[in-house]
Amino acid sequence: MEIYKKRLGLLRKNMRENHLDVCVILNSDPHLNEYLPEHYQAIKWLCGFDGSAGTLVVTHDYAGLWTDGRYFEQALRQLPSDVVLEKQSATQNYKRQLANFSGKIGIDFAILPFAAYKELCALLNPASLVDCDCVGNIWKERPRRVANAIYAHNLDISRAQKLRDVRAKMRQMGAEWHFVSSLDDIAWITNLRGSDILYNPVFSAFLLISANKAQLFLHRHSLSESLQKELRNDGFSLFPYKNAQKELAKLKKRRVLVDRITTRTARILQQNGNKLREELAPSTLQKACKSEAVVARIQDAMIRDGIALCRFFAWLEGALLGEILDECDIDTHLTAFRAEMEHYVGNSFATIAGFGANGALPHYQAKRGACAKLLGDNLLLLDSGAQYLDGTTDITRVVPVGNPSEAQKRDYTLVLQAHIAIAQARFPDKIAMPLLDSIARAPLWQHGLDYAHGTGHGVGYFLNVHEGPQSLSLNAPISPRTRVHAGMVTSIEPGIYREGQWGVRLENLVVAKASAHAGFLEFVPLTLCPFEPRLIVRTMLTEAQKEWLDSYHARVWELLAPHLSGDVREWLERKTCPQ
Amino acid sequence: MEIYKKRLGLLRKNMRENHLDVCVILNSDPHLNEYLPEHYQAIKWLCGFDGSAGTLVVTHDYAGLWTDGRYFEQALRQLPSDVVLEKQSATQNYKRQLANFSGKIGIDFAILPFAAYKELCALLNPASLVDCDCVGNIWKERPRRVANAIYAHNLDISRAQKLRDVRAKMRQMGAEWHFVSSLDDIAWITNLRGSDILYNPVFSAFLLISANKAQLFLHRHSLSESLQKELRNDGFSLFPYKNAQKELAKLKKRRVLVDRITTRTARILQQNGNKLREELAPSTLQKACKSEAVVARIQDAMIRDGIALCRFFAWLEGALLGEILDECDIDTHLTAFRAEMEHYVGNSFATIAGFGANGALPHYQAKRGACAKLLGDNLLLLDSGAQYLDGTTDITRVVPVGNPSEAQKRDYTLVLQAHIAIAQARFPDKIAMPLLDSIARAPLWQHGLDYAHGTGHGVGYFLNVHEGPQSLSLNAPISPRTRVHAGMVTSIEPGIYREGQWGVRLENLVVAKASAHAGFLEFVPLTLCPFEPRLIVRTMLTEAQKEWLDSYHARVWELLAPHLSGDVREWLERKTCPQ
Repeated sequence: MEIYKKRLGLLRKNMRENHLDVCVILNSDPHLNEYLPEHYQAIKWLCGFDGSAGTLVVTHDYAGLWTDGRYFEQALRQLPSDVVLEKQSATQNYKRQLANFSGKIGIDFAILPFAAYKELCALLNPASLVDCDCVGNIWKERPRRVANAIYAHNLDISRAQKLRDVRAKMRQMGAEWHFVSSLDDIAWITNLRGSDILYNPVFSAFLLISANKAQLFLHRHSLSESLQKELRNDGFSLFPYKNAQKELAKLKKRRVLVDRITTRTARILQQNGNKLREELAPSTLQKACKSEAVVARIQDAMIRDGIALCRFFAWLEGALLGEILDECDIDTHLTAFRAEMEHYVGNSFATIAGFGANGALPHYQAKRGACAKLLGDNLLLLDSGAQYLDGTTDITRVVPVGNPSEAQKRDYTLVLQAHIAIAQARFPDKIAMPLLDSIARAPLWQHGLDYAHGTGHGVGYFLNVHEGPQSLSLNAPISPRTRVHAGMVTSIEPGIYREGQWGVRLENLVVAKASAHAGFLEFVPLTLCPFEPRLIVRTMLTEAQKEWLDSYHARVWELLAPHLSGDVREWLERKTCPQ
Repeated sequence: MEIYKKRLGLLRKNMRENHLDVCVILNSDPHLNEYLPEHYQAIKWLCGFDGSAGTLVVTHDYAGLWTDGRYFEQALRQLPSDVVLEKQSATQNYKRQLANFSGKIGIDFAILPFAAYKELCALLNPASLVDCDCVGNIWKERPRRVANAIYAHNLDISRAQKLRDVRAKMRQMGAEWHFVSSLDDIAWITNLRGSDILYNPVFSAFLLISANKAQLFLHRHSLSESLQKELRNDGFSLFPYKNAQKELAKLKKRRVLVDRITTRTARILQQNGNKLREELAPSTLQKACKSEAVVARIQDAMIRDGIALCRFFAWLEGALLGEILDECDIDTHLTAFRAEMEHYVGNSFATIAGFGANGALPHYQAKRGACAKLLGDNLLLLDSGAQYLDGTTDITRVVPVGNPSEAQKRDYTLVLQAHIAIAQARFPDKIAMPLLDSIARAPLWQHGLDYAHGTGHGVGYFLNVHEGPQSLSLNAPISPRTRVHAGMVTSIEPGIYREGQWGVRLENLVVAKASAHAGFLEFVPLTLCPFEPRLIVRTMLTEAQKEWLDSYHARVWELLAPHLSGDVREWLERKTCPQ
């Protein structure tokens, strides 16, 4: 902890030299990524906290870390004694706290979301905000920005076509220019992939599009000569990553379409008299609405993922009878089974393998050397996913270790009912997805149960495992942004968490498709892996729920069995045969 | 139609004299009432349209009436040929249209909601808006404002206590003054009732509250001497209705709590340096959260309403076999049965009795001389309600005339399933009510069916049949305002509308109560009237749905049977016995 005291001391010295009274360190980067490159993990460097959501506020005699309920426990464990845990809630956050401070506030506009800046301006005098990377001078051993190799990903319509589609939308929206800063949008438009961010196959870049220009800012040495040529042939001109701001500053008095940008970007554009049109980026919606061809490819990836999962779960069932495994072994073995599959690139997020009470922590991360052994009677919750060249997967299943109790079976069945309730629902085309969340929760609410996370999130196509704009969460905004469209791939993952005891979460990815009823959509499951018959109390299920379950299992058998043999095939038959 | 041409001509002449280029006539009044006194029905006077939602925009060479989908057909029928129907939608409304006009726009700030004014200011130059009652000079035979007798309604906690409660909330919210302009809030706080508005037992008044003042502005001659004295004893001082603005203008540099005010009010307050706190009025939430004592009184009123309904429906079933009735007879007879009941004051809204295709129009109004006869095989939809001194009722039932078809029975049963789905739901305390709407719709969505109105609205206690702040509608905003609290009385009224054929809507009032599970609420039905066994396909119902239906019918029988005898009692027994 001494190291953090020293670093905070350095920060305060730097603040004095720059005449700053307050300094705000954000968990953010110039692309507003969900997963941050190490270069931008300044909070972890300053105070040791490595949760995904947090803001560090430092004055000369105070330091406080703001985070939400998911991370209170972790923050208390990780923070040094001189950094206070500040609990974020619906009514309190760092922005409101700043309104009570006086003096100059240093904050890095290059990573401050413009939306947050506007909120701050409503709460305090904008003149007190100073654009400043407060750790820039003091973080000597700061990791460099990575720029790994970029490669083509052509399993989709051409990038030339995508550019035409984006431009068509720009014309419709009356935008002369469009600045794209989100990395998955750039990867999607350009049909390129990289590995600059953990788990997300994206690369650092900006893209500036007009009716006849497409300026791509990236680390050119990451691209092969032939790929550079290909891009030029497709109408993209290449610029160094660091030139993006300079080019942006050349735009004067234009109508510029932007979506989720930083304060730096917004100010550069506004200072030159450009008119910002802050709207959903065309590519974000186009990317979310997978074509039939793409859905077919994702289904292929799901078959391979399903094969790996069946092999793993069949192996696990046997292994549990003879060996003592721990949570980290689970990750190791599952990853090994997946790595054998064609087109496997890596995992799509850090595996969550939580045994017993650890399963009750929705964001649990087993740490080697300090993880639980799978001993005695309890449940193992396993949330994992992979990146294949032809699809991104994300699945949660729960496995009994030893003999499950009646209470555990009841919880599993209730979560299955919640899952089925939304999985078999039909709903009006383009309804705001958050409005559907209560359909999933209703069966749990009936028993006074609920879960403190959304029911589902969008998933990319060999892209980010969390992808917008839709959100199946009652906490997400009701707006045109969160509407459901045919082709959207979304997770369904209700859960029950018994603090100190066990957790149950059951997750499939599904795709929204037109139903037999005009104007209504329905979900079709993409994930292929059986639920656990030993944990299902069939008498609790309605006829319609049994029908859904049996037909899902029939589909899993039909698509996976041809690829399996021996013990694994027998295992799958036992799990999927109508009970 | 000639009369409307003449009146529009007078309006345009008046506009020229006042140098106005555009004139906007609103369906509104100084209290932003839902039902307007005749004095404020200027749109009807100018162009004949009498729908509840509409805005008339007039220039020197154009007149257009903006209204929403519910009223397109009616507007086309009622409007003269020189008034264009402008269809309001999510993306188009009169405010956006005004942004395209140039010149001076006359609009009456005394009835313009301040929220609408702020929207207008964001769309156009505020200086182009001129505060002007454009019909004031030309509407010679304009009905006077009514000021009927006001009477005490003491079936609740005392008005002194209510005043203390409001003041406690004001202190919590940091408000020095609170201006109340909504009539049901004033009636509720003062424990007074009136009859200035059709169907709503309210009276025209304003109320201005501080820590030690409670200034009530009303037509004093409407109050008896003794009631005036009572009010003064309870801490209210009485002022003429017309003095409200004058007194309001005396407030300088105060923190004033307001909710749903007019532009006139907002500007008077702002001009004097007062700080507006626009938040949910304390009385609006307190009024919505009925105490156990009040719920018990409402239940008593429901028993009387149920008795009247059973007598009516039993009579109707016999009458249909021998007589030819029409839709208007239905209203007449039902009202007569209700009028016999103790504490009956009047109806709570205009009865909707729609036979066959008329039932498919959710807001149908039968007109004497032009209404349908109940002949042949079809369904009668009957939506009605009454005001009793101890409760406001609102119920919809559907009755088969002749032999119902299988399709009609299926529709009835589907709507019943939707009704039961939400009626038996449990849900987290204080969840935003709009998020629950999809629980009701899900059973219909499953069959590609939906309805173009909300699932439910709040209902007052011998007050307005439409009462906020809660709303069980997926079109209502998700906000702290629309949260559900224990004690809230709400309607549940899903429907299926077969254009040109029939309509089904099934409505009960329910009250939210704590459930057996901590932190979760559930609905308890208040309305007492059987559903129609001849229209229910029991095989379509799940076990849980049958259980709810049988237990509801057991409750109806238990509470109503002791008050019934002879044929009516037998009728109720037939309808409520487990099938």
